[in-house]
Amino acid sequence: MNILLVLAHPEPDSLNGALHRFMLERLAASGHSVRTSDLYAMRWKPALDADDFPARDSAVRFDPSLESLKAFEAGTQTADIAAEQQKLLWADAVIVQFPLWWYSMPAILKGWFERIYAYGFAYGVGEHSETHWGDRFGEGTLAGKRAMVVTTTGGWASHYAPRGINGPMDDLLFPIQHGILYYPGFDVLPPYVVHRTHKVDAAAYARITEELGQRMDMLFTADPIPFRPQNAGDYKIPALTLRPDIAPGQAGFAVHSAPTAGRG
Amino acid sequence: MNILLVLAHPEPDSLNGALHRFMLERLAASGHSVRTSDLYAMRWKPALDADDFPARDSAVRFDPSLESLKAFEAGTQTADIAAEQQKLLWADAVIVQFPLWWYSMPAILKGWFERIYAYGFAYGVGEHSETHWGDRFGEGTLAGKRAMVVTTTGGWASHYAPRGINGPMDDLLFPIQHGILYYPGFDVLPPYVVHRTHKVDAAAYARITEELGQRMDMLFTADPIPFRPQNAGDYKIPALTLRPDIAPGQAGFAVHSAPTAGRG
Repeated sequence: MNILLVLAHPEPDSLNGALHRFMLERLAASGHSVRTSDLYAMRWKPALDADDFPARDSAVRFDPSLESLKAFEAGTQTADIAAEQQKLLWADAVIVQFPLWWYSMPAILKGWFERIYAYGFAYGVGEHSETHWGDRFGEGTLAGKRAMVVTTTGGWASHYAPRGINGPMDDLLFPIQHGILYYPGFDVLPPYVVHRTHKVDAAAYARITEELGQRMDMLFTADPIPFRPQNAGDYKIPALTLRPDIAPGQAGFAVHSAPTAGRG
Repeated sequence: MNILLVLAHPEPDSLNGALHRFMLERLAASGHSVRTSDLYAMRWKPALDADDFPARDSAVRFDPSLESLKAFEAGTQTADIAAEQQKLLWADAVIVQFPLWWYSMPAILKGWFERIYAYGFAYGVGEHSETHWGDRFGEGTLAGKRAMVVTTTGGWASHYAPRGINGPMDDLLFPIQHGILYYPGFDVLPPYVVHRTHKVDAAAYARITEELGQRMDMLFTADPIPFRPQNAGDYKIPALTLRPDIAPGQAGFAVHSAPTAGRG
């Protein structure tokens, strides 16, 4: 299968750098084709701006969304944006790896999504009607592909527990896993999270690579997070609120995943 | 009072640009001193990387966190970083304004926080012991100041409702309001959110500026979000989980705010 490893860490000689190389070797050894987007090494341009649209009419006010649609449809996107979109289309699975900085992804990675997720590519796709609010959240350009977050934190696991002060890790990752990855169609696997990065010694590293290696081996067989598809009946359209009879009385990120037999 | 307006939108002739100018004029007319950080206009460098530390030993592996501490303490930070930190120290209130892109702040703004929130300035401050886990979440360098998010979305309010498909707006903003603003000490005011930006006509704009003007007038009198301070007894240290007798049986972002008399 084809696998894209996306990495956002500025130092190759870091835990993230080592885990990136570990995954690359493990997946290649399993017979997969692996490509990488090492954003710092590529000196990826982080900010979406008018420079991204060299063919645009600069006399018109800049609308990032509409310009991205025009450039995508006309084939006038910049080469760096088009190349990354092609990698996503090529991939059967994408692993998005980053240190958790201020409770989210580093700016350079956020800007990777902002710039390559063009209108017409990652959103604004499909029928938009009273029964189908675009191909998104379960449908879309990237449907049928898998995605997985691999992230690291300096803090302890308990700080990210259900009642930990930082908020639960699943909730911190919801805007990424549901809002960025599930949105254009990816099936999203549970994340792999390393805590207390400054305490990772040889024994911890051996455990981490054992676990992460197993996760790589199960990349195409593990069950994805059971996010609810938007257009299959669970949501009222166009309000896009969950039907009252589903998870009645509950609210928050968790209601957008279906309970599974294997879960507590 | 001193107020810093931070803006992350690439087009001055946009709704965000108009609201930025509206707030600036309203606050100045009220007698406040107002400064701005218009990140796109400043061509702010978004990505935290080794170039931010010109005085560092390039033979040593790059540790972004430790390098930021060294540069902060030695006074060798880059001029752009030091200038923005000085603006934060100068301000009595900071308004952070951005369009919600992919359920979070634009990359250029994320990178503003990543680069200016140095170790020793925004984190790693204060006593670190078994009873006090650093001056953060209610204490810190920016304690006594106020912060407020002003954001815009293309989607409907119902899509961001408690059972809306995008997740509740308060939860989407938690990593920003709690994790980025409350962390170094800000008192965080409830956000001001504009939905369906493409439908904002003259009547809607009049309503928005009426509401936003009132919010500006109440910047120093409105009640902040009652996030729970870390070191005042609500959390077990070092686990940093909420004490079992507080909000028993509950979990998620909401438990980190205290119930208030005025709330349902």
